Amino acid sequence: MALGKRLVADVLKKADIEINGSRPWDIQVHDDRTYWRVVLSGSLGLGDSYMDGWWDVEDLTEMMRRIMRSDNTEKVPGQKLMLGAMALLNTIINLQSKSRAFIVGEKHYDIGNDLYKAMLDPSMTYTCGFWQNAKTLEEAQYAKLDLICKKLKLAPGMRVLDIGSGWGSFAAHAARHYGASVVGVTVSKEQAELAQKKYADLPVEFKLLDYRDIPKTYPGAFDRVVSIGMFEHVGPKNYRDYMEVASAALKPDGLFLLHTIGGHEGGADAWMNKHIFPGGVIPNLEQVSRAVRGVFIEEDLHNFGPYYAMTLKAWRDNFDAHYSELDHDKYDERFRRMWRYYLSVSEAGFSARWLQLWQFVFSKKIEGGYESVR
Amino acid sequence: MALGKRLVADVLKKADIEINGSRPWDIQVHDDRTYWRVVLSGSLGLGDSYMDGWWDVEDLTEMMRRIMRSDNTEKVPGQKLMLGAMALLNTIINLQSKSRAFIVGEKHYDIGNDLYKAMLDPSMTYTCGFWQNAKTLEEAQYAKLDLICKKLKLAPGMRVLDIGSGWGSFAAHAARHYGASVVGVTVSKEQAELAQKKYADLPVEFKLLDYRDIPKTYPGAFDRVVSIGMFEHVGPKNYRDYMEVASAALKPDGLFLLHTIGGHEGGADAWMNKHIFPGGVIPNLEQVSRAVRGVFIEEDLHNFGPYYAMTLKAWRDNFDAHYSELDHDKYDERFRRMWRYYLSVSEAGFSARWLQLWQFVFSKKIEGGYESVR
Repeated sequence: MALGKRLVADVLKKADIEINGSRPWDIQVHDDRTYWRVVLSGSLGLGDSYMDGWWDVEDLTEMMRRIMRSDNTEKVPGQKLMLGAMALLNTIINLQSKSRAFIVGEKHYDIGNDLYKAMLDPSMTYTCGFWQNAKTLEEAQYAKLDLICKKLKLAPGMRVLDIGSGWGSFAAHAARHYGASVVGVTVSKEQAELAQKKYADLPVEFKLLDYRDIPKTYPGAFDRVVSIGMFEHVGPKNYRDYMEVASAALKPDGLFLLHTIGGHEGGADAWMNKHIFPGGVIPNLEQVSRAVRGVFIEEDLHNFGPYYAMTLKAWRDNFDAHYSELDHDKYDERFRRMWRYYLSVSEAGFSARWLQLWQFVFSKKIEGGYESVR
Repeated sequence: MALGKRLVADVLKKADIEINGSRPWDIQVHDDRTYWRVVLSGSLGLGDSYMDGWWDVEDLTEMMRRIMRSDNTEKVPGQKLMLGAMALLNTIINLQSKSRAFIVGEKHYDIGNDLYKAMLDPSMTYTCGFWQNAKTLEEAQYAKLDLICKKLKLAPGMRVLDIGSGWGSFAAHAARHYGASVVGVTVSKEQAELAQKKYADLPVEFKLLDYRDIPKTYPGAFDRVVSIGMFEHVGPKNYRDYMEVASAALKPDGLFLLHTIGGHEGGADAWMNKHIFPGGVIPNLEQVSRAVRGVFIEEDLHNFGPYYAMTLKAWRDNFDAHYSELDHDKYDERFRRMWRYYLSVSEAGFSARWLQLWQFVFSKKIEGGYESVR
């Protein structure tokens, strides 16, 4: 066996994956150049060669999950180097500077509302659902939004700031069911416009604004601050500023709920950064703790990462079911493979418990304490 | 006004405390040497001068709570220096080395079971109670023990390791109500003996053992590991080892519940270290996160610090009610003042939200995730 193939085969074997085997998780390699590309470029090479159609697999999620559970990935030459280089890059330059912040808005969230409409539930909630008692994606998203409102102890008349408001589903839920008025902030023009139009009848407003400009745009104090699935775009160099922005926006007896993906290592995957989330970085708990130290008290932490695997699977099923209806000039076969790879690998990451979904509740030393909710 | 007095008066004024004023939280200074002792020795001087009877106050807890809430304590000259020196000491020498571990057992927990019997509830649980639905200390301790069993999802036949088992109340509760068998480990001879005798009819055993010796004494794997109010004695240099001991003792699909006091700064108070908890250090979340990184996943974090204020108040009430029955050769007036100071200042720390009570649930990437309990 040639060296490149042997190196890859050895790693796969530890995860019980056979090259061109017959089980759903066995990789089918069509192009032998795959091996060296993986050896030399790690996760970037694996993803890019998949996009190029050099290999296939019936159950991509299960294949990736097996690799992650086997805990042998550090032995794929190149991958460690790649992760190290990305970490270094993150400490040297601020990939999430204000001047770069709107790139993710344009590159990811402005891809087209049509794609997200096909993939997401009707509320267009693009974050992890809460599946404890839910049977459908729509129910899981409703339950998640409601859980956040309950954790925040929302009451009529409260003013809420939503940092990273997406297509506005949280703002709408908080206004409709809890009588709150909400200011949503996003870096995506398409999101802000769609949300403002969709919820014109509710006391919610959506602004195209970088979070660093919140203090001067909204110097007044909010009763509650919430940030759902936005912290992953903030970047370690900005975590402290981010917490200070949230603190400045919050009344002394207020609550701040932070909903974010987390990981042990933290950091950024090269393939995800190149194709899906430019500037995206997964925080670890040490970084979050350091960022809030002296600013907020940690009142509560709830980890429901496995529900993200279920959410991602539901999104992939929707994408598959509706792909034929999408504009194939805009979303060609290469895009389709890229998108399915993104969804499957992410699902595997949560299923293998490499990735976590954390909901934090922070306060500013609220007297009498915080009674947590599940 | 003399300089020393003026310095102290300025700090107290910010907390609305008047020297020799008439409100319950106004300090009554009997000896003017108090001022310079506080200026020069910070919290150590404040506590020691109280023990010496140099000052009094009707409501000590409220006085201390006001100082802490005023957030001006860093302006007490000397205090910052003291905290800095203690932190430095902790990084240089291992105050919680194995050879020193039994000191806390002898100095604090072996003071005498009679004292703790007078102060604690009948189950002799010497950690924060859970007061959500409790009216008495006994109910709060029962609720806390039961909450831990539920969070650990205990089932009949499970083997549980209890690191820092105290007088055995958790072990007994888990055995009696959940059918578990428990090994408890403590550094206090009096605790181990009393617990073993008290619960002779249950499948629980108590060992006088340093936690670092657990792996060689109990190489077998436990279904669950629990540690309630012991981490405060471990010390930052040993946090990583501690987590690795817990991990080594735990099955791959096991759960580890860690119940500990926490703080933003972390660190050790000079007075508490001298008189109450030699080698005691309050961890912060950054330190805990770093210690578990790559060892455990953080599944859940529950902060109920304000319940510790209620617990400490109940202990102080019991101590006051039963002090007259105690042996006054062993527990003289100076001891009485020291003990009340310890309980009152701690109560103030939790009430002011300087101190937190954290329950963590950790797993080793348990498949399917952990469903958290409140």
